[in-house]
Amino acid sequence: MRKVSGWAAHAQGAAVAPWDFERREPRDKDIVVRVRYCGVCASDLSAIRHGDPAAFPLVAGHELVGEVSAVGDAVSRFSVGDQVAVGNIVDSCRTCPACRAGRENWCHEGVTLTYGGIDRVDGSRTQGGYSTEYVVDEHFAYPLPSGLDPAGVAPLMCAGVTTYVPLRRWGTGPDRTVGIVGMGGLGHIALQLAHAMGAEVVQFTTSPDKATEARRLGADDVVFSQDEQQMAAQTGRFDLILDTVGAPHALEPYLSALSIDGTLCLVGIPEQDLRLSALSLIVGAKNLAGAGSGGTGETQEMLDFCGAHGITAETEIVPARDVNTTLDRLARNDVRYRFVLDLA
Amino acid sequence: MRKVSGWAAHAQGAAVAPWDFERREPRDKDIVVRVRYCGVCASDLSAIRHGDPAAFPLVAGHELVGEVSAVGDAVSRFSVGDQVAVGNIVDSCRTCPACRAGRENWCHEGVTLTYGGIDRVDGSRTQGGYSTEYVVDEHFAYPLPSGLDPAGVAPLMCAGVTTYVPLRRWGTGPDRTVGIVGMGGLGHIALQLAHAMGAEVVQFTTSPDKATEARRLGADDVVFSQDEQQMAAQTGRFDLILDTVGAPHALEPYLSALSIDGTLCLVGIPEQDLRLSALSLIVGAKNLAGAGSGGTGETQEMLDFCGAHGITAETEIVPARDVNTTLDRLARNDVRYRFVLDLA
Repeated sequence: MRKVSGWAAHAQGAAVAPWDFERREPRDKDIVVRVRYCGVCASDLSAIRHGDPAAFPLVAGHELVGEVSAVGDAVSRFSVGDQVAVGNIVDSCRTCPACRAGRENWCHEGVTLTYGGIDRVDGSRTQGGYSTEYVVDEHFAYPLPSGLDPAGVAPLMCAGVTTYVPLRRWGTGPDRTVGIVGMGGLGHIALQLAHAMGAEVVQFTTSPDKATEARRLGADDVVFSQDEQQMAAQTGRFDLILDTVGAPHALEPYLSALSIDGTLCLVGIPEQDLRLSALSLIVGAKNLAGAGSGGTGETQEMLDFCGAHGITAETEIVPARDVNTTLDRLARNDVRYRFVLDLA
Repeated sequence: MRKVSGWAAHAQGAAVAPWDFERREPRDKDIVVRVRYCGVCASDLSAIRHGDPAAFPLVAGHELVGEVSAVGDAVSRFSVGDQVAVGNIVDSCRTCPACRAGRENWCHEGVTLTYGGIDRVDGSRTQGGYSTEYVVDEHFAYPLPSGLDPAGVAPLMCAGVTTYVPLRRWGTGPDRTVGIVGMGGLGHIALQLAHAMGAEVVQFTTSPDKATEARRLGADDVVFSQDEQQMAAQTGRFDLILDTVGAPHALEPYLSALSIDGTLCLVGIPEQDLRLSALSLIVGAKNLAGAGSGGTGETQEMLDFCGAHGITAETEIVPARDVNTTLDRLARNDVRYRFVLDLA
């Protein structure tokens, strides 16, 4: 076993503290990644503060980049010294139709998550990227796109692919008008992606002070979603609205803003049930869709796209020792736009 | 003005009674249709019993077939003696993008409905097909497909196009598995359409006694939706489920039955708000869509398809004088599968 230094919560809601633990030696297809940066995702906060009690001690983090420091005997895609990225999935059945299509996030058996999951070989609990080293099957690692800031790539591994997949699926491109709801970790990447795909992009926000930032990141227009007049003026405008907001909010104003056949796609996860009238979908033949994460095929495609267009997350890099204050700031939404822990 | 005999409710909830009223003489582009049959749609029942009080006296009926008995000076598509069908839309702005695309049902100005609408030229109230004669712009009339039973074509004009459009939009065809929820006026046509499009078709029903009928109409399989075990066995099976049920019912069992990227499309209109969890859409990247009616392009395409495949509604033809008992029977769902009034 390999000794690793990490940052763990030892019980649900506990502060995160340094923790020395062990990882497996690399299996034939494994690579060992010396972690340099790890993004701090809202789902990390949720897992640490409200997650499954059985998963503690818990090392969070599923947006990591680093350098390959060792490889298993049968590794073919990576060599020691390669720069790589790992996202929120580290294994799947590999045989179901979803896995064979490179859409492992919908594996029929369920995926093995990067942390809090159960390793398919030895039954151990997976521990995440808030640590100095990660051991992963090369199938779930990706070459870091050249020319991109590594810290800014880390959040692409979850926030990036989660927004890239539905933007592509629902036809984002020239002659399409796309709205982005929320301008946080997911939204600020979605904005850049949709702009680079050639769409007219409109940022919906509750914070008027984000308008200048939104335009800098690619928005052609900004709508203040709490201004009823502005919202009413959006009727029928959008082919797609990507809703990245997890907090409860009304969907019908966004459904009204869709054109005929338009899609409102949810990637944020409100805890409360959604409520809407059937007529808000029937009139105009509209569509309420969901999306979440991506498989290896989509993740690689997203990284290639971001490499080609120079897209990264906007990050605030913080030393790993500040992880608790960082989580507190994330909890009160004091972040522009993604925290990245420096683990070097 | 032309004297017409019809069947009208004179106030909300009143019995329907014979009523002599007047229609306009044909304008340049109008045809006069001697009505032979008119389908009895659930929305007729709703308009008569719970509709806008300002719309009474109200002659319902928006699924009509008959023979052209006169034409305006500029009519080019029809001649006296032609067999024609008219659906639930008789005018629209003709200039908005939806109208120009032959999708007049989503006209940006709103359509003129076949009954209870306001005529765009003279401001009069439109009266429907429970009458001996209808006057309509030829743009909203369709040649009756040859070889089809005229009475069975009448319900295609609303129930047929309402199901045809979403079946096409969501890719019904070979190698696709499509579920139909409900086997009433809409469902029994959707079943035939989906089968003719080449899909594997599964009928969901709450009535085990409908299984034989469902197979006769094209179902490859029948699922009793109140049998939890049978429903659980459907997990991940369907590319598309078309939900024709207006009564309130849980959506999540059907969302669970969808495959990755699958769509649950609502064409029935529950009065209550829909409730569902965001995760039921996010997990598997699923869609909840709506659809309703169709424009002239889609209606013509549907009629061509039905003509080519010999598809009509299954009807019970009743004399127009029995309209009240017919409405009562429809209200208690005592119909297989569509009533058609004989107005000859």
